[in-house]
Amino acid sequence: MIPVAILGGSGYTGVELMRLIAGHPELELTAVSSRQYQGQGVASLFGALEGTMDLAFCAPDPQALARAARLVFLAVPHQTAMASAPDLLAAGAKVVDLSADFRLRDRTIYEKWYAPHTAPQLLAEAVYGLCEHYRAQIKTARLVANPGCYVTSVLMALIPLLKKGLISAEGLIADSASGVSGAGRKAKEALLHGEVAENFKAYAVAGHRHTPEMEQELSLAAGQEVRLTFTPHLLPMDRGILSTIYAAPLGGCGEDQVRAAWQEAYGAEPFVRVLAKGALPATKEVRGSNRVQLGAAMDPRSGLLKLFSALDNLTKGASGQAVQNANLMLGLEETAGLGELALTP
Amino acid sequence: MIPVAILGGSGYTGVELMRLIAGHPELELTAVSSRQYQGQGVASLFGALEGTMDLAFCAPDPQALARAARLVFLAVPHQTAMASAPDLLAAGAKVVDLSADFRLRDRTIYEKWYAPHTAPQLLAEAVYGLCEHYRAQIKTARLVANPGCYVTSVLMALIPLLKKGLISAEGLIADSASGVSGAGRKAKEALLHGEVAENFKAYAVAGHRHTPEMEQELSLAAGQEVRLTFTPHLLPMDRGILSTIYAAPLGGCGEDQVRAAWQEAYGAEPFVRVLAKGALPATKEVRGSNRVQLGAAMDPRSGLLKLFSALDNLTKGASGQAVQNANLMLGLEETAGLGELALTP
Amino acid sequence: MIPVAILGGSGYTGVELMRLIAGHPELELTAVSSRQYQGQGVASLFGALEGTMDLAFCAPDPQALARAARLVFLAVPHQTAMASAPDLLAAGAKVVDLSADFRLRDRTIYEKWYAPHTAPQLLAEAVYGLCEHYRAQIKTARLVANPGCYVTSVLMALIPLLKKGLISAEGLIADSASGVSGAGRKAKEALLHGEVAENFKAYAVAGHRHTPEMEQELSLAAGQEVRLTFTPHLLPMDRGILSTIYAAPLGGCGEDQVRAAWQEAYGAEPFVRVLAKGALPATKEVRGSNRVQLGAAMDPRSGLLKLFSALDNLTKGASGQAVQNANLMLGLEETAGLGELALTP
Amino acid sequence: MIPVAILGGSGYTGVELMRLIAGHPELELTAVSSRQYQGQGVASLFGALEGTMDLAFCAPDPQALARAARLVFLAVPHQTAMASAPDLLAAGAKVVDLSADFRLRDRTIYEKWYAPHTAPQLLAEAVYGLCEHYRAQIKTARLVANPGCYVTSVLMALIPLLKKGLISAEGLIADSASGVSGAGRKAKEALLHGEVAENFKAYAVAGHRHTPEMEQELSLAAGQEVRLTFTPHLLPMDRGILSTIYAAPLGGCGEDQVRAAWQEAYGAEPFVRVLAKGALPATKEVRGSNRVQLGAAMDPRSGLLKLFSALDNLTKGASGQAVQNANLMLGLEETAGLGELALTP
Repeated sequence: MIPVAILGGSGYTGVELMRLIAGHPELELTAVSSRQYQGQGVASLFGALEGTMDLAFCAPDPQALARAARLVFLAVPHQTAMASAPDLLAAGAKVVDLSADFRLRDRTIYEKWYAPHTAPQLLAEAVYGLCEHYRAQIKTARLVANPGCYVTSVLMALIPLLKKGLISAEGLIADSASGVSGAGRKAKEALLHGEVAENFKAYAVAGHRHTPEMEQELSLAAGQEVRLTFTPHLLPMDRGILSTIYAAPLGGCGEDQVRAAWQEAYGAEPFVRVLAKGALPATKEVRGSNRVQLGAAMDPRSGLLKLFSALDNLTKGASGQAVQNANLMLGLEETAGLGELALTP
Repeated sequence: MIPVAILGGSGYTGVELMRLIAGHPELELTAVSSRQYQGQGVASLFGALEGTMDLAFCAPDPQALARAARLVFLAVPHQTAMASAPDLLAAGAKVVDLSADFRLRDRTIYEKWYAPHTAPQLLAEAVYGLCEHYRAQIKTARLVANPGCYVTSVLMALIPLLKKGLISAEGLIADSASGVSGAGRKAKEALLHGEVAENFKAYAVAGHRHTPEMEQELSLAAGQEVRLTFTPHLLPMDRGILSTIYAAPLGGCGEDQVRAAWQEAYGAEPFVRVLAKGALPATKEVRGSNRVQLGAAMDPRSGLLKLFSALDNLTKGASGQAVQNANLMLGLEETAGLGELALTP
Repeated sequence: MIPVAILGGSGYTGVELMRLIAGHPELELTAVSSRQYQGQGVASLFGALEGTMDLAFCAPDPQALARAARLVFLAVPHQTAMASAPDLLAAGAKVVDLSADFRLRDRTIYEKWYAPHTAPQLLAEAVYGLCEHYRAQIKTARLVANPGCYVTSVLMALIPLLKKGLISAEGLIADSASGVSGAGRKAKEALLHGEVAENFKAYAVAGHRHTPEMEQELSLAAGQEVRLTFTPHLLPMDRGILSTIYAAPLGGCGEDQVRAAWQEAYGAEPFVRVLAKGALPATKEVRGSNRVQLGAAMDPRSGLLKLFSALDNLTKGASGQAVQNANLMLGLEETAGLGELALTP
Repeated sequence: MIPVAILGGSGYTGVELMRLIAGHPELELTAVSSRQYQGQGVASLFGALEGTMDLAFCAPDPQALARAARLVFLAVPHQTAMASAPDLLAAGAKVVDLSADFRLRDRTIYEKWYAPHTAPQLLAEAVYGLCEHYRAQIKTARLVANPGCYVTSVLMALIPLLKKGLISAEGLIADSASGVSGAGRKAKEALLHGEVAENFKAYAVAGHRHTPEMEQELSLAAGQEVRLTFTPHLLPMDRGILSTIYAAPLGGCGEDQVRAAWQEAYGAEPFVRVLAKGALPATKEVRGSNRVQLGAAMDPRSGLLKLFSALDNLTKGASGQAVQNANLMLGLEETAGLGELALTP
């Protein structure tokens, strides 16, 4: 068993990492930190893990974590992640960072949307952890920046189409909706059951921090600068993201060509399901799994392509993809520990 | 008290009509039909009405309903509605039809999307019951076609902007999501709690029947033919529609101009709430009320306007607007019986 | 219009009071306080009230509230309520206290379950606001202690049966479940959507503070000391309480006798629905209404009576009953402003 | 890989079996029948299985299923199960029956609650599949009757206590609540999202078919006839059962003794979690897992013990336990394919 550790294990991405590691045939969790719950047993906070996780939360000490593990997952907020990454790497650990700190290649863009960057020397080295598109680089990386949840759902649909020139790089619109776990486990009034249940609304409509991350990768795929119109919404449910994307086809591309391009890009991918004509992605069908479902339809009246992409924001959108990255970085089977299917119902 | 009746009272729009009539100061329900539940007490089917509705469901006999009422609400499926409307009108009753049968002015468009029309002689007379925009005609109408739920949400946002030329009539996209009650009370597997809860997905993506209805009214407002890209989604909740609409501004129109135009159109309207800058519509804030919330934001990166419109699909989207229409047709206060606010939470 | 005020209006009972007062034909809200949101517009916090409540939250100053109103609702936590009640009464206002501070007649019992009582001189004067059972006293009261939500559901079912000696006062068990709004609007991790949705569990199983309140009133009804076994549970929903009560029949009492006794006690009550044989209370049928539904069944194997009682914890279980009390105290129609029915669905 | 088959795979227990078999290291699904969906691909009905289940539903032919498999799961309604079991056994297949047909040892009791029994010759041979209590018999059985979902939750809590004489066999009350998936996947109005969401109510209060099954096993454990008061409720969620059980302690038994007895009975059991003092079972913590959580508290006022038992009605309450039984019958590791933990959140 390969020892791994988690920096910041008391949030939803942290507990999702623990759930996946508990079922992983090759990884063993040797330490998990939490500033807030230090000293408390993990299972007393997360009852679902009881009997499988005898650990207590430890102090957020990078040196100690690096000694305990060959790879450390950073499940802390941005800024905290970049404060720990250099020490962890220096101590010899590989790092998968679930925060945004190493996702943007351009420091100025990061600092425009987030905060001053305190570890810019690592930006060039960090590999963007969208496994299906950066697999080779991830395998040899020390530091992987795990993509954002909305970002993964949009990129998985668009990258193959932009690369093949099947859709225009202009006028792209991504209308996305996420379950509430994407907003974390912090006690905020806006996340109470009383505020979320039987409610649907948009938020961050004039600029969400996932936008520059999407534009960076879409621009690379398109070979030109892409500007995306992105609107996130909050769903009355726990888990799942659905992105509905509007794109102008090029060269007579129809929905069959879209599916063919996806099939070409992803036909051998274990976690990508290109749905048959007429079938549409549904968040419940990927809930708790590491899968992405992709579907396409042509709007016969407007001539726009509608692309649909569903995933679980905590699994393929965060901790599942982080384990997939760890598997690649550690030379393990890429699917190890990630075989679970969604419950029905 | 003015006697009214309902043809087809066992569905969700039917019971919503009964709820609203039970609280209405001027209307009295004298008959409600149901083929399926004929002879059964209304309150034994809908426990929330117990003690306020002593009626039993009667046979769907237009003549009898017309004798019992000055106005009849048609809460039956399309085709059934147009089979009854001529008899009801001939017998002297006014009619508010909640189905699609008299919404499309062009018979050929109706027949393309629905079925052969059996009462085309009434199409010219029927008034489109979007109260805020057809109030004068509704007041003198015998037959009002109550608008569709998605349609109302989209039209309320767009009509004032198209009329003033603030947005382009081309490239309009409406990305909408509805609670499950919009699909009715029929026992279908797709509507089971086990299928709907914790799920989000699109449907009817290549053409929903509400599209031609939207295009008809948008074209009238724009003074040119409008083609709309419309995508409906199913939300894991009972009630509520949110439409997120993407529009290209004209003449430098920004979000402030949008709000000003809405305020000009709707400032005196009792059921339209134009939200302040920074506030966004939320379905929970209009649940069970007859309100529409409108909000706007400019996407600073793409230059597209994002317009948001929230309503309750069963109230302003169906039965509430039907009562609003009935109030106008019967010379009552337009807001009578429609004062309820959404619950929090 | 009679001016009323609310001390502590930013919680769920506060906003429910505002919703009900907004629709009340005789009451006008002239002031509402909130320590946390002082100065902020009420409608900016609670969007459902937008356009009907132009007030901003004011400071929690009892003198000012008493000047502004003939009756003040206390929607603050226990201890805070008893700190304000004496000043409000001295300034001439009537008071309906939604906290527990004046519910327990015996100061020692209050202090055992809660905290030292700082206004014990008012305990003898305070009237227990279970309207259907203390109507005469409420009409002349200056200070009414509005009952607890679980308590109301249990007392409404049991008091008539104990008074008539139809059930044993021993061995009573109340197994109750509440929607999450009963726990308030404070930002706590346990109340997040992620913790509540798709979850069901008991809490406070070794002693909930509503127990002594129930026992006080049950003992009065029975004419002997009653000890109740009470178990509250948390439901994955916003509103509603269902109590399932197990009682041993006396003198051959069957379920028909139970319904007859309820009918005798409540036949003329506008807010109590005694369900017919075979029908069972459902929280959704009373959601947002001021109703209590009562149902009964005999277990043929064990010979125990099963009694069921459903209400909305924020309406009949809190703010609706508070308005009902205010109506009585102010000489208004008891049902004024309380006519709304539950939505279906 | 050992070939297994499912008779009746289109319901929720059927798809749960398929999910578990898809992740099972030793079992391979070779056939699954459905009268309704015969010929249709499994994955087109259950999208979560897409890519792992290439089967199409076949005809419900016992001979063909027996040829294709060493063990057949019966996930059909009662009566249908007993019509197929003899043929399957005669053809050499082992059988795990998820229906009620072979659970009741006494034919007259079965026929009183269900229907005439058409395979009574198998009743003596059938083994009751509560794994933790009948493990030895299950290992050598040809025909196992998989216990009911409510039943499993109640028996797991009570059997050890009755066997040790820690609680009275008289006056037992089980107040249980289940997610809606326990009612199956049939299209019924009562199971629509619109009827279930934000609702809580009891049902079958005068006699649920699980009662005689519980009484049979409780009587065996107690060594005397047990009569149970049982009340099932419907929860507004998909999966999970919580039973709250009231029992009179004997010989001064307190909650610590209860936990000790459970620990003694279940300390080595992989799927039973005896919670520490103060912790209470929660359905979300066992959702999708094969676990049972047990918790206990003494009510200090009444002296009654409160026992709590949580499980997932489709996993440990049905298909998970069925796979556990199959593992035992086939000589496999008992936990094979059953290691998944509940999602958080």
